[in-house]
Amino acid sequence: MTPFLNNYLSGQWQSGADAVHTLFDPVTGEALAATGGAAAGIREGFAFARHEGARALQAMTYAQRATMLGEAVKIMQANRDAYYAIALANSGTTRADSGIDIDGGLYTLGYYAKLGAALGDAHALTDGSAAIMSKDQLFQSQHLMVPIKGLALLINAFNFPSWGLWEKAGPALLSGVPVVVKPATSTAWLTHRMVADVVAAGILPPGALSIICGSANGLLDALTPFDVLSFTGSAETAAKLRSHAAVARDSVRINIEADSLNSTLLGEDAGPGSAAFDLFVDNLVRDITIKSGQRCTAPRRALVPKQLFQPVAEAVAGKLAAIRTGNPRNEQTMMGSLVSRAQYDSVQEGLHRLKTESSVLFDGNAQPLLDADHQSSCVGPTLLGVRDADQARLVHAHEVFGPVSSLIGYRDGAHAIEIAHRGQGSLVASVYSEDPALLATAARELAASHGRVHLVSPDVGKTHTGHGNVMPASIHGGPGRAGGGEELGGLRALNFYHRRAALQASSVVLAAITQSASPFSA
Amino acid sequence: MTPFLNNYLSGQWQSGADAVHTLFDPVTGEALAATGGAAAGIREGFAFARHEGARALQAMTYAQRATMLGEAVKIMQANRDAYYAIALANSGTTRADSGIDIDGGLYTLGYYAKLGAALGDAHALTDGSAAIMSKDQLFQSQHLMVPIKGLALLINAFNFPSWGLWEKAGPALLSGVPVVVKPATSTAWLTHRMVADVVAAGILPPGALSIICGSANGLLDALTPFDVLSFTGSAETAAKLRSHAAVARDSVRINIEADSLNSTLLGEDAGPGSAAFDLFVDNLVRDITIKSGQRCTAPRRALVPKQLFQPVAEAVAGKLAAIRTGNPRNEQTMMGSLVSRAQYDSVQEGLHRLKTESSVLFDGNAQPLLDADHQSSCVGPTLLGVRDADQARLVHAHEVFGPVSSLIGYRDGAHAIEIAHRGQGSLVASVYSEDPALLATAARELAASHGRVHLVSPDVGKTHTGHGNVMPASIHGGPGRAGGGEELGGLRALNFYHRRAALQASSVVLAAITQSASPFSA
Repeated sequence: MTPFLNNYLSGQWQSGADAVHTLFDPVTGEALAATGGAAAGIREGFAFARHEGARALQAMTYAQRATMLGEAVKIMQANRDAYYAIALANSGTTRADSGIDIDGGLYTLGYYAKLGAALGDAHALTDGSAAIMSKDQLFQSQHLMVPIKGLALLINAFNFPSWGLWEKAGPALLSGVPVVVKPATSTAWLTHRMVADVVAAGILPPGALSIICGSANGLLDALTPFDVLSFTGSAETAAKLRSHAAVARDSVRINIEADSLNSTLLGEDAGPGSAAFDLFVDNLVRDITIKSGQRCTAPRRALVPKQLFQPVAEAVAGKLAAIRTGNPRNEQTMMGSLVSRAQYDSVQEGLHRLKTESSVLFDGNAQPLLDADHQSSCVGPTLLGVRDADQARLVHAHEVFGPVSSLIGYRDGAHAIEIAHRGQGSLVASVYSEDPALLATAARELAASHGRVHLVSPDVGKTHTGHGNVMPASIHGGPGRAGGGEELGGLRALNFYHRRAALQASSVVLAAITQSASPFSA
Repeated sequence: MTPFLNNYLSGQWQSGADAVHTLFDPVTGEALAATGGAAAGIREGFAFARHEGARALQAMTYAQRATMLGEAVKIMQANRDAYYAIALANSGTTRADSGIDIDGGLYTLGYYAKLGAALGDAHALTDGSAAIMSKDQLFQSQHLMVPIKGLALLINAFNFPSWGLWEKAGPALLSGVPVVVKPATSTAWLTHRMVADVVAAGILPPGALSIICGSANGLLDALTPFDVLSFTGSAETAAKLRSHAAVARDSVRINIEADSLNSTLLGEDAGPGSAAFDLFVDNLVRDITIKSGQRCTAPRRALVPKQLFQPVAEAVAGKLAAIRTGNPRNEQTMMGSLVSRAQYDSVQEGLHRLKTESSVLFDGNAQPLLDADHQSSCVGPTLLGVRDADQARLVHAHEVFGPVSSLIGYRDGAHAIEIAHRGQGSLVASVYSEDPALLATAARELAASHGRVHLVSPDVGKTHTGHGNVMPASIHGGPGRAGGGEELGGLRALNFYHRRAALQASSVVLAAITQSASPFSA
């Protein structure tokens, strides 16, 4: 019998629900686990989190909560083998790709444990220094950040069941805010197992961490004005969440990471044989194939000078040809599966659409799969080519969430930036060049429409953290189509889980307030 | 013939529209001015602002834009008499109340001119210091704030046609972001006149400042992903804006100031005869009557220890009895009119609702109006009394936007905080006490549910800036029912008009980027 992923609410594991959704191995098709339908006791569970969970968390200092996060990391590190086994079976990922999710999640949680320790024995954070409001200087205004009075509902995406949880739950719990996570059903097993391990270890106070697997029905209706909602997923669902009464009428704060047509740019200076050219090609291939392209940061559009279109196409195709796709249990496999047959169908359909405007420069699906057949959710890497960026429409608007990127030729630097902007706001753009002035100019142009701009010059060719990797020290998010959200970025992540208030008072009173606060700085 | 308030879009005053809406004198009923219906050329005008306006503004440095704001202040100061005449006729306000809007607006704009000068010859702002991302320390992440790539659409409320414009337009223009203002129709005349004066002076580049009077139809449909929308008004309209496709689907950033059931609290230590008691009473009376209570920050709920209910009721009633209401042209008049007959009806209806749960402690409408009749929009001040705060529902949920406050008795400090929280998020709470520890505790409790906490101890009795006054150094906004927005707060106001991006690069490249940036700090 397959495991049933029960819900944990009000500090209790729920039992007795009927199995409604099934989780599958995307390579073998085997049924792995099941979840129920709409959860029972949502309102009570949310109230328990807001009262019991928040009370206990907020009685602790930042340093105490940081210690708790560090202990959670240790508990999970002891269970890493189980997590890798679940990821292999449920996400169809190679060991390296599973590591990006699992170890990436634990690294990020550990990062917040470390940052939090530095906040010390405080219960609130001061924001900036006091402004003098009276001639005698006695009346002043001091901004204070205090934990929100609600819970954080995290509705997460299927591609990062571990990292997606901890990159959000880390800052929330460090802030003293209880978390309810609703993982995407298709890969909920890993999230469920991690939560179960942390709960079993008794590290967190009751109500601090809850999980709901299966249907999201009823979750939004149970939100109240001081809660926050964080969503990673499609723009279509995001629009529905924003229009829900809890958000639209009760001002529940919402953070969204949605679609993104990220760009990677090769500078005009970087011809074949140059270090920047090689870095561009190597990194593009890596970013196309890591997690089978199932990263919201993957470069969907590769922009190169028109005269370099052919050499780049050949170099990238050459490297993609060496990628072996298939069952991640085979040690020869370099790229595993998509997470589900639904994603497989979505990628096929997306490719079909993009091909109406582009040519196929490389088709990895012509190669045989390793230990997998075409009933699996494995797809080979594809490089498409768009010669007229100005005429093309879909390549700037339709994200294919798989190992697919489109090569696009640009005329000059201004044209390249204009093409990047046609994505209408993206999570990340990268630029490869040997010219610091070119990189600096591009960065300034791209900053307003991208949450992150990643600049690779040969001096950092070996040490840069990668276009697609989200590092906790840098903010993650982007305007417009990308959802307008902002996560991570060091302590900036705590903004979402705090309320900022201006305290206007005599300096004597302000001193009494701020004695239990640490300074907040980015 | 009454003046026609034409629209200014694409750097041109539009003409030829039919009069659709009429603006009235709320005291005499006289027709004062007219506006058209839905504006023509909105999409073209918005595109002009985004391209011509933004290009010109962003070619300037912060210091240059600050100088421009300072020049706008000077131009308007030269026209103050005209503004007071318009406010008297169109808003029905006394000279003192007109000054809060007119001089308050110019003061706030001047404040941003001063702050902006300190940002110097920069085109972007650095946020925090660089984070080291590689062992050799060469690869780093630096957060940069750059002006958004869109326009700011300001949909403003009727109660502050001057301040409401400049408290938003000041930070927007200082950020390099073009502004389109849609003032509330009933009092649009003053906004229109100020914009016309600034436009005529030729201080701002074409496209930097546009105005649309009359209908808001079509404005939201013309927004694109990088625009921002700032709204002050009802929670009902706010919910509609949040659900509009531009916001819900295209992630147009939105800032909302909506309803607020603000509280003012008298500490348990402050008995009759104490300085804190007298300060509480004096300030409550002032905040009820200033601008006839038409301030979103006015204290709708006055919370006092149960045993002080009667003495406070008597003291407040005694002072309210001295307030003469009527035509602001009469020098004896201390409180003018509501802005329109629609507001008059809304206040009467709201009073009727609140009275179902409360008693009338003082009714200023029993007194004769000065030089005005009951066809005018004048209403006298009203103090209601709620003895059982826990049973009452409407007093915590229904904002009557006029000279009305409800006195509520509380049992102890915890009960007072609980009652304040029943407002589900407010713009401001104030506390009056002689005990710094009481004030500090209350402030910590109130901070998460209020944008501003105003603490009055006798040492700042003469110098504090007032519960209801919004000072530009402190943020203005509040969670939940108050709309979840955040404005002002010194340089914090610039956040809304900038995008923050993480720039990941070699320190050599980062140095080239940040050489034209100034540090951002709150």
